[in-house]
Amino acid sequence: MKLKVGILGATGMVGQRFIQCIQEHPCFEISALAASEKSAGSKYKDVAKWYLAGDMPEHISGAVVEEIDTKIISKYDLDIVFSAIPSKIAGKVESDFAKHIPLFSNTATYRMTNDVPLVIPEVNPEHLNLIKIQKEKRKWKGFIVTNPNCTTIGFVLPLKPLMDNFGIEYVNVATMQALSGAGYDGVPSMAIIDNIIPFIRGEEEKVEIEGLKILGKFNNKGIDFADFSVIAACNRIPVLDGHTESVFVKLKNDFEITDVIKIFNKFGGVPQEMKLPTAPKRPLIVLNDEDRPQPRLDRDRGNGMSISVGRFKKNKDVLKFTCVSHNTIRGAAGASVLNAELALKKGWI
Amino acid sequence: MKLKVGILGATGMVGQRFIQCIQEHPCFEISALAASEKSAGSKYKDVAKWYLAGDMPEHISGAVVEEIDTKIISKYDLDIVFSAIPSKIAGKVESDFAKHIPLFSNTATYRMTNDVPLVIPEVNPEHLNLIKIQKEKRKWKGFIVTNPNCTTIGFVLPLKPLMDNFGIEYVNVATMQALSGAGYDGVPSMAIIDNIIPFIRGEEEKVEIEGLKILGKFNNKGIDFADFSVIAACNRIPVLDGHTESVFVKLKNDFEITDVIKIFNKFGGVPQEMKLPTAPKRPLIVLNDEDRPQPRLDRDRGNGMSISVGRFKKNKDVLKFTCVSHNTIRGAAGASVLNAELALKKGWI
Amino acid sequence: MKLKVGILGATGMVGQRFIQCIQEHPCFEISALAASEKSAGSKYKDVAKWYLAGDMPEHISGAVVEEIDTKIISKYDLDIVFSAIPSKIAGKVESDFAKHIPLFSNTATYRMTNDVPLVIPEVNPEHLNLIKIQKEKRKWKGFIVTNPNCTTIGFVLPLKPLMDNFGIEYVNVATMQALSGAGYDGVPSMAIIDNIIPFIRGEEEKVEIEGLKILGKFNNKGIDFADFSVIAACNRIPVLDGHTESVFVKLKNDFEITDVIKIFNKFGGVPQEMKLPTAPKRPLIVLNDEDRPQPRLDRDRGNGMSISVGRFKKNKDVLKFTCVSHNTIRGAAGASVLNAELALKKGWI
Amino acid sequence: MKLKVGILGATGMVGQRFIQCIQEHPCFEISALAASEKSAGSKYKDVAKWYLAGDMPEHISGAVVEEIDTKIISKYDLDIVFSAIPSKIAGKVESDFAKHIPLFSNTATYRMTNDVPLVIPEVNPEHLNLIKIQKEKRKWKGFIVTNPNCTTIGFVLPLKPLMDNFGIEYVNVATMQALSGAGYDGVPSMAIIDNIIPFIRGEEEKVEIEGLKILGKFNNKGIDFADFSVIAACNRIPVLDGHTESVFVKLKNDFEITDVIKIFNKFGGVPQEMKLPTAPKRPLIVLNDEDRPQPRLDRDRGNGMSISVGRFKKNKDVLKFTCVSHNTIRGAAGASVLNAELALKKGWI
Repeated sequence: MKLKVGILGATGMVGQRFIQCIQEHPCFEISALAASEKSAGSKYKDVAKWYLAGDMPEHISGAVVEEIDTKIISKYDLDIVFSAIPSKIAGKVESDFAKHIPLFSNTATYRMTNDVPLVIPEVNPEHLNLIKIQKEKRKWKGFIVTNPNCTTIGFVLPLKPLMDNFGIEYVNVATMQALSGAGYDGVPSMAIIDNIIPFIRGEEEKVEIEGLKILGKFNNKGIDFADFSVIAACNRIPVLDGHTESVFVKLKNDFEITDVIKIFNKFGGVPQEMKLPTAPKRPLIVLNDEDRPQPRLDRDRGNGMSISVGRFKKNKDVLKFTCVSHNTIRGAAGASVLNAELALKKGWI
Repeated sequence: MKLKVGILGATGMVGQRFIQCIQEHPCFEISALAASEKSAGSKYKDVAKWYLAGDMPEHISGAVVEEIDTKIISKYDLDIVFSAIPSKIAGKVESDFAKHIPLFSNTATYRMTNDVPLVIPEVNPEHLNLIKIQKEKRKWKGFIVTNPNCTTIGFVLPLKPLMDNFGIEYVNVATMQALSGAGYDGVPSMAIIDNIIPFIRGEEEKVEIEGLKILGKFNNKGIDFADFSVIAACNRIPVLDGHTESVFVKLKNDFEITDVIKIFNKFGGVPQEMKLPTAPKRPLIVLNDEDRPQPRLDRDRGNGMSISVGRFKKNKDVLKFTCVSHNTIRGAAGASVLNAELALKKGWI
Repeated sequence: MKLKVGILGATGMVGQRFIQCIQEHPCFEISALAASEKSAGSKYKDVAKWYLAGDMPEHISGAVVEEIDTKIISKYDLDIVFSAIPSKIAGKVESDFAKHIPLFSNTATYRMTNDVPLVIPEVNPEHLNLIKIQKEKRKWKGFIVTNPNCTTIGFVLPLKPLMDNFGIEYVNVATMQALSGAGYDGVPSMAIIDNIIPFIRGEEEKVEIEGLKILGKFNNKGIDFADFSVIAACNRIPVLDGHTESVFVKLKNDFEITDVIKIFNKFGGVPQEMKLPTAPKRPLIVLNDEDRPQPRLDRDRGNGMSISVGRFKKNKDVLKFTCVSHNTIRGAAGASVLNAELALKKGWI
Repeated sequence: MKLKVGILGATGMVGQRFIQCIQEHPCFEISALAASEKSAGSKYKDVAKWYLAGDMPEHISGAVVEEIDTKIISKYDLDIVFSAIPSKIAGKVESDFAKHIPLFSNTATYRMTNDVPLVIPEVNPEHLNLIKIQKEKRKWKGFIVTNPNCTTIGFVLPLKPLMDNFGIEYVNVATMQALSGAGYDGVPSMAIIDNIIPFIRGEEEKVEIEGLKILGKFNNKGIDFADFSVIAACNRIPVLDGHTESVFVKLKNDFEITDVIKIFNKFGGVPQEMKLPTAPKRPLIVLNDEDRPQPRLDRDRGNGMSISVGRFKKNKDVLKFTCVSHNTIRGAAGASVLNAELALKKGWI
């Protein structure tokens, strides 16, 4: 018996990645597709342009799109909901749903809220304990669990074993972010061909704070944030999918690059132990070629759920490396689905 | 009376930028074009593909290309030579020429040699005093003056006023470098469309050391290097011209961004005071728009000789900014020509 | 004394090209900038993003944008108006203006209207005689003159001397059109990187009919269309500016490629004879290199007003060639301005 | 028992596609990898850069690369050979191999030779009968079978049912060809970003003649070529894989587009009847969306073996359509493998 799933914001790029991630899922099945008012009532194929290679899945194409409204919970007998809606409407919509059922959100709105878990299952699975606090405080039957920004996840996953083994003093990160992160219509081709845009609205702010919550400690009441500074320079570059990040980390204890590589290669967590369906075998894949990782060649590793890492350099106590992650899979839909799988296994659903 | 100039490596991308920079120059005129053996003896237009927009200058197209050999000094009665030859042959060739006449080199070979000036005229014009030491030691009639790597120059120019005003503790820099930096055939399109390559052979090593020499002090015998660490992550991205760099600088003294902007806007040096022909009015141009600088829109500022700067952020004592510079003009041919203008005005030629 | 000019649709890509074409014009000066309601009342710099390289012209940046309304005629004492407004509003707006003053339109709406001239000055200057018919019939003080679609103009200019010398039986044309033709936001980067879109709404229909009017004969009452068929396949490709077209023309009389080249090279018309300010010295430039014309390298020839032609092939009575034209200069703003210059010189204004 | 296969030119882009097409093949297994002298003797992974997404297949990476020499036939007990070698060496090499065993070549050298079949299995399987003539005449134990140029195959497959149903009078075709067609290093990024190159050496000549042989009739002695003219304009555009072609065909008999679509949709041939392993279910896939086919979205249909067709237009007796085909699969390695499958099933091997 699979759980019945609703997808809020089903027609956009992340919505389509949700469909892709769930369509052959062993635990979840897509029951309701919801989108903005203007799409509601029409067949999915008539209002959604399919952005991914190949054809729209057949059972989706004929489905009628619903309006984003809690009525769909009972209408489709939903068990959980995934949300890929714009942050400006998420405040109300997501809490309305969470009053009734578990909601896993890729939207920024609730990420930094005290009683809302912001989770990467390999990094801070114990933060799910915030669910209890959240439900009690808010008297909700459901709850909200969020996953980080697509850029945050790329460097916070490798930071976890670095922090545990060596301690972190600061992080400077320059990102080269894919176009899909802005949504299908987000970046005009006239803006980006033969060009870079060194600005993504709101991005650096998110990247600089989210990791500190994720790498923080659950103290039975809330999260004690990690205590180091992150400075981010976020750049948009002409790549379709896959965020690349140049990361400079000052570590507290002495290290050797060979140790870092070993630690990364053996890194895993609850999702790997529990063999969650969407979990990659290896969350971190160290590439030894001097010219890797590259977004086009490495973004799909682990079905888009692995982070590829390379280009290590040590300068005194600073470690420099480069990582590539798939921004709409590990950085969005896949992250939410993995969170739901974790919550399910851990008995929260 | 203009000085007669020879260009070594005249058919490549930097060679063509030399032609472009010199062709209407008030002090220099192109007398000899030299290139590899296989081009020697042919007309320029028959061996060189013109990479720049518009047509090849007419007086160049019919000129016969010479082999790279010191014979051209007397044959064309040359006064100075510019070099854009590969570093693997530059060791011998450049010193052979410098025995006889001044040579301004864009090649890496001699940049870090003790008695060879590595100069950005706005930053360290006094390093030209190494010429005297060089000539005496080597018993040369001529000398070698070098300009930095195309990437180095982009962030070292803004570092100069920062160092002078606040002191520098460290620099972490992530670069997004244009394709022309690798030469016309350097990066296959199959490698870079929808992609990034996080590796440029030998680049990070140059970028991490050259700035410390340039920002060092001339002590009447040599250069005392600046005393901070630079860590670089160099990335190739699909942009034709113009290097973009995300720079993180820890400053020694407290600062405000408004001060930095003022200091950058009023920054100038000897080239501006002396009104050297190739000097831009403003070496640093602060852009206030939140989404600038961008390589396609800003690389040509100051005829490709100005560095555009923006995206300032302060986090405690760390300053983050983004700069764009034209890698084959300010980062190559234009830099060499400006060095020659400085040497000429200062009486070294 | 320059004529006072209003630009309708001044904030878009073609609007900016109008500003660029007129800002140092010997006969015209920009007096009014008009745009949609939501921009009206603000300074140009506050509502328009400057798309072109370099900075927005200073005298423009501070100008207050007006709403598109005939009130601006008297308010600014306008002599003529250029229009770059969307075709869906042009029907009413352009005729409202033309009741009072001459209007030169880059919009499609009136191009195929019987009494409206559709003019390329080198091809069919005599079609301006329709102005008289138009004014009489409509009782207008002003009039409308249109220029063709950006794609039409690229191959119709070379067709003119072919038709005159050899006669034309059919034209098959496949286009590879630049992104700027769709407006700044027209083509999302996600749609076009590593891709082609073989569809541009409404384009093939325009391209297949406009040339027949332009190459038609003014019969003192209207235009007798040229009598051959044009079939077009219009493709969008990832190029910023410059339309490239592969043209197959079946000619009625025998020809040699050498003759075609001679005819193209000596081709000129009224704009060249009268030395109209915006007219290029040579409307058609034949390039002999086997790999030209190329949009990036050739789009700016003749300040964007020349058509570059090459890749000739003859197969029996079919001529194949490739042409490149700048779609927002010769294909839009420059075309309108040249039409206005012609009308001025011919005494219609 | 699988046939033992050697791949000549195994390290290039087409060589890698051969590896990809054969590595899980039911009838063939890769036994020998041969490449140029400078690679010979090394492990594949040490001399070949893997261009495709994902990792190099493990059993390939450790294999020792052989020199291209007939000695490998006995050394590896080869049954057949696939060739992806440069045409300048293919003349001798391919005939040397064919003296001993069947060779399936993707190289141009022998395509137009009288007694060598140039085959698309869905179009002219009966041309394999030339093998008998070839073997007798040349006294070879093996033979050569060739597949067409990557561009030819894209439009000749749809031409086949058009010719059979309506007759063809002429074909004008403009191509927009992917970068991979030129080999990994073939097109510098500096040449093609924000650009088109309207020239591919030798391509138009191949495209204009090969189809006439393929669509010709086997007359028991040789091939009577099809009797219509093809004129091609071949353009290189910035797309990684997938050739797009705008095709104008004048048909002899009257047609309706609805008929053409029906005929295309039901088109199939011997490979489909015999269910050859590499044969796509549908060689031609008609796409109804007005903006398809697009290379990025449609090149992988039928595992890269289907041709996507759309954008139909009728103008009197001329049919216009657009097709997309994967140039290194259906246009190269996949085509050769399908030829070998056909030859095997038909008893030629």
